[in-house]
Amino acid sequence: MNQILNVDLGDRSYPIHIGAELLSQPGLLTPHIHGHQVMIVTNTTVAPLYLDTLKRTLLSTEQYQVANVILPDGEEHKTLAQVNLIFDALLENRFNRTCTLIALGGGVIGDITGFAAASYQRGVNFIQIPTTLLSQVDSSVGGKTGVNHPLGKNMIGAFWQPQVVLADTRVLKTLPARELSAGLAEVIKYGLIRDPDFFIWLEDNISGLMAMDDELLTEAIFRSCQNKADVVAEDEKEHGVRATLNLGHTFGHAIETEQGYGNWLHGEAVGTGMLMAADLSWREGWLSKEDCSRVRQILAHANLPAEPPAQMSAQCFIDHMLVDKKVLDGNLRLVLLKTIGQAVVTSDFSEMHLHACLEAGKNLGQK
Amino acid sequence: MNQILNVDLGDRSYPIHIGAELLSQPGLLTPHIHGHQVMIVTNTTVAPLYLDTLKRTLLSTEQYQVANVILPDGEEHKTLAQVNLIFDALLENRFNRTCTLIALGGGVIGDITGFAAASYQRGVNFIQIPTTLLSQVDSSVGGKTGVNHPLGKNMIGAFWQPQVVLADTRVLKTLPARELSAGLAEVIKYGLIRDPDFFIWLEDNISGLMAMDDELLTEAIFRSCQNKADVVAEDEKEHGVRATLNLGHTFGHAIETEQGYGNWLHGEAVGTGMLMAADLSWREGWLSKEDCSRVRQILAHANLPAEPPAQMSAQCFIDHMLVDKKVLDGNLRLVLLKTIGQAVVTSDFSEMHLHACLEAGKNLGQK
Repeated sequence: MNQILNVDLGDRSYPIHIGAELLSQPGLLTPHIHGHQVMIVTNTTVAPLYLDTLKRTLLSTEQYQVANVILPDGEEHKTLAQVNLIFDALLENRFNRTCTLIALGGGVIGDITGFAAASYQRGVNFIQIPTTLLSQVDSSVGGKTGVNHPLGKNMIGAFWQPQVVLADTRVLKTLPARELSAGLAEVIKYGLIRDPDFFIWLEDNISGLMAMDDELLTEAIFRSCQNKADVVAEDEKEHGVRATLNLGHTFGHAIETEQGYGNWLHGEAVGTGMLMAADLSWREGWLSKEDCSRVRQILAHANLPAEPPAQMSAQCFIDHMLVDKKVLDGNLRLVLLKTIGQAVVTSDFSEMHLHACLEAGKNLGQK
Repeated sequence: MNQILNVDLGDRSYPIHIGAELLSQPGLLTPHIHGHQVMIVTNTTVAPLYLDTLKRTLLSTEQYQVANVILPDGEEHKTLAQVNLIFDALLENRFNRTCTLIALGGGVIGDITGFAAASYQRGVNFIQIPTTLLSQVDSSVGGKTGVNHPLGKNMIGAFWQPQVVLADTRVLKTLPARELSAGLAEVIKYGLIRDPDFFIWLEDNISGLMAMDDELLTEAIFRSCQNKADVVAEDEKEHGVRATLNLGHTFGHAIETEQGYGNWLHGEAVGTGMLMAADLSWREGWLSKEDCSRVRQILAHANLPAEPPAQMSAQCFIDHMLVDKKVLDGNLRLVLLKTIGQAVVTSDFSEMHLHACLEAGKNLGQK
C-alpha cells in the first residue's frame, strides 16, 4: 500500500515514502542513518503525539544514541535563535559529522531542522517526517530550508536535500480540520497549474480526502510530490517554470500580511488567492466561466474561504503586492491560468481587470 | 607581474589573483559582480587602512550600490551573532539575491562573510580579499566557511566557494611582524608535506620573504595555493590526503588551547607543532637528523618559536591531543613526515617516542 517516489537529483537523490503507519517501520529509516547519533527535532504540539513512537521505532532494531530538541510551535519561532538551540543540543551531546537530524513536525520544523543540518559542521544528514498535509506535499520536495529574519521571511537558509522523507497519512488524523483544508489548497494547486487529470481526480475524491481516507491521501500526496518534483527538476534555481508553483501566492501573501500571520493559515490564503487568479484569468478571456466555477467549487468542498477579507480594498491589495519579492523592477507579475492544468507567469493583464478582480469580494468568478 | 591561479571545481571554479596593488584594479573585481549591490564586510583594524581604497576602486567604473559592515576584530567575535549583523545590514539595505558580499580582512572575516553569503537568501555571491598572509595561503582555497560555537570551533558553517580571490601582497606591509611569521609557518607547511622543491626555494628566499619582497611573496602565495588546491581537488570531503594539511596542527592546537587563544598565534603554534612532528618523525627513523635541523632552521629564520611553552608537560599535551577532533575512536593519529616533502597520516608511532618528543622542550630534533 505504501508508495515510493524517487526524487531524482543525481548524487543527492532521495526517496519519499507515502502511506499509513510509516512511523512504526524502522526499515524505512535505518538504511538512511549512516552514523549512530540521531537528533530528533520536533515541537511542543507534535512531541506528545509522536515523539515516543518514533523513538521506539528507531531503537527497535539499532543501538542509536537518540536525543531530541523540542522547540516552541509556530511561525513566529522560525528564527536563527531556534536553530542555535539545535546546535547547543548537538554539541552538548557531542554529536559528530556523521550524525543524522530528523525533523518531526510541520513546515516550520522542517525548515529550521534542514537549515541546522546544512550548517552543523558544514553539513550533516537529515530526514524529514512532515506531520501536516501542507508540509507533506510542499516541503518534501525542493530542498529549501531556512528561517525568518525580522525584516523578511525565509531570508536566511540553504538548499539542502534530505536522505529520505516519510509522509505518513496516519499522523494527519490528529491534524486540526482547518490545517487539512489548508494542505488541500496546495494539493489542488498542482492540478490547476499542470495536471488536469489530477484536478478531475480531486473533484471526484474531495469528500474522501476530507474524510482522511488513507488510500486517497496517499494518492493525492504522491501526485502532488510528483508534480512538484517534475517542476523543480525542470527549473532547480527558480528562474522560470518553478514560479508557477506560486499560483495564488501573491494574492495570498497580501491577505496573510494584512491580516497578520496566523489569523489566516497560509493554505487558506493561497486557496482564496487561487480563486482570485482564476477570476482574473477569466476576465482576461483565458479561463472559461465554467472552469472558474469548478475552482470555486472544489475550494468550497475543501472548506476553504472563497473570498478575501471584506475590509481589504483593491488599493490595499496592490500596496502589498507591489512589495512582494516576485515584483521585478516595479512590474507586477502574476501566475495566471490559461486553462485548468496550464499556468503562466505573466505581467500581460489589464489593470482594469485586476482592479475588478480585487473589488469582486464574494462574487469572484461570478459576474 | 600578477599571477593567476585557477581553482578547478567544475562549475564552481574561480581564479585567485596574486600580486601587488590588486586592490586598486577594478578590472579584477567587476567581472565577478553580477548584480549592482555590493556589501563589504571588514573589521575595525582593516577598515581604516583599506576600506576607502576598495570603495574607490569599485565606484571608479561601475554604479554599484556599495554598503559596508565593520565588525569587531578577533577570533572571539567569530560568532553567529556577527553573521546576524551582516544579515541585518543586507536587509536594511534591501539587498536581493543577486547581491555580492566582499570579505576584506583576515581569516575570521573571510569565514564569517563566506557563511553569511552561503546563507543569505539561500546563497549569494561572495569575493574574498584576504589581508593577512595566513588567510591568503589558507582560506583562499577550500571553500570552508563558518563560525565558532561556545562548545567548539568552526562547528557552524558551510562549504561555499568565492567568485574570485584577490591576494594583494601590498596590504601585507601593514601586517604586524608576528602575523607575517605566522603566515610563513603555513607556507613552509606546503613545502614540508608535498613539495620538496618549494621547501628548498623557501630556504633560499626566506630572508627576502621576511623583508616582504612583492615578487617573492607572490611566488610563495602562488605555490602555497597551488599545493592546497591540488590536495583539496584530490580529496574535497576530507577523507584522506587532505588531512596532511594538518601537519603540526594537533600539537599546535594543544598549545593554543592550553595558552588560551590569542596568546600564541595559530601560525606560531603550528610552526612549533611542525617541529614537534619533525622530531617524532626523526625518532621513528623516517626523517634524517639533518632534515630535522633544516625544519628547525627555516622556522628560526621566519622568527617562529622553536619550542613549546616550558610549563606544558607531556601529559598536558596528551590530554589536549586526545580530545582533538582528529582522534578517531581513541586512536591518536598524527601527520608525520617520511621525508621533507612527503607527509603521512598515521597512528603507527611508538608511545615512547611520542613521550620523548613531548618532553624534548628546547631540544626538539637535537638529541
